[in-house]
Amino acid sequence: MTSQQLSVKVAMNSWRLVAERAGKTFSNFTEDELLKEVAPGKNRVIYVWGHLTAIHDAMLSILGLGPRLHPELDAIFVSNPDLTATQLPSARELKKYWDEVNTKLLSEFARLSADEWFERHHAMSEEDYAKDPTRNRLAVLLSRTNHMSYHLGQVILARNSGA
Amino acid sequence: MTSQQLSVKVAMNSWRLVAERAGKTFSNFTEDELLKEVAPGKNRVIYVWGHLTAIHDAMLSILGLGPRLHPELDAIFVSNPDLTATQLPSARELKKYWDEVNTKLLSEFARLSADEWFERHHAMSEEDYAKDPTRNRLAVLLSRTNHMSYHLGQVILARNSGA
Repeated sequence: MTSQQLSVKVAMNSWRLVAERAGKTFSNFTEDELLKEVAPGKNRVIYVWGHLTAIHDAMLSILGLGPRLHPELDAIFVSNPDLTATQLPSARELKKYWDEVNTKLLSEFARLSADEWFERHHAMSEEDYAKDPTRNRLAVLLSRTNHMSYHLGQVILARNSGA
Repeated sequence: MTSQQLSVKVAMNSWRLVAERAGKTFSNFTEDELLKEVAPGKNRVIYVWGHLTAIHDAMLSILGLGPRLHPELDAIFVSNPDLTATQLPSARELKKYWDEVNTKLLSEFARLSADEWFERHHAMSEEDYAKDPTRNRLAVLLSRTNHMSYHLGQVILARNSGA
C-alpha cells in the first residue's frame, strides 16, 4: 500500500468509526428521547439527526459523487433552526434516510481512487484549488467527520445514562 | 507537494482548526460558566477542559514526541470522573497548561517528516503495526481531532448564547 492509499484508508476508517457509532446511537434512542433537547433550550436529538443526514447527503454533490438523495431535508434541518418546521419526518423515516445516505456515501467512497481524494471538491473553482491544493475531497471528509463528532458529543448527553 | 505531504497537511489543518476553536471557546468562558455542567448531571466545562488537556498531553508519549508536560492531570481528569477530585486547577492554571501542551504539540508536529506520520504510534508493538499499517501517527491525530470535536460540541452548550 502506498502512503497515499494509506492516508485515504486512515481517513475512511475514522469516518466509518464515527458514522457507525452515530448510527447506533440515533437508532437506540426511543421516540421520547428523540424529542429531548440535548441541553436546556438547545436542539432536540431528532433535529440533530436530520441535520447530520442532510449535511451528509450534501457531501454527494460537494464531492461530485452524484445527485443528492434527500435535498428536501435542507429546509427543515439546515436552513432553519429547530422548532420552526411544522412537521418533521418520523423516526422511522429518518432512520431510512440516514441509512440510505450513509450506505450510498460508503459505496461511492470505495469507488474513488486514492488520487481522486486529492482532487478539488466541487464547491470550489479550479483557480482556487490551484492556489490551495489542501482544499480537496480528503479535507471535506475530515471536516465532515469532525462535524459529526461534534454533534455526536451533544446527542450522547440526552441519553439516560453514560457520558 | 507530494500527495503524502498533502494528506499530512490536510490532517494538520483539521487539527489546528478545531484546537484553535476549542482554545478560544474555553478561554472565553467566565469562571462561573466553567463551573456549569454541559447538560444537567453531566461533566462541568472545567472538567472537559482539563480532560482534553490531559489527553492532548498524552499524545506526546503516544506519538513518541518526548516526555509529557503534565501527567499529573490524568488522576483528576482521565482516571476519575468529574466531582471526585477535592481540588481542580484554577482556570488560569488550566489555560496555562492548555497553551503549553498545544503549543508543544504543534511545534513537534512541524518537526515530523511526512514519512514519520505513517510510522506506527508508540502505544502499539512493531508486530501489530506490521499486521495493520493504518495504526500510525496519522490515525492517532485524526482520532484525537474527533475526540476534541466531540467534547467541543458539548461545552458549546454551556455558553449563554449560540448553538
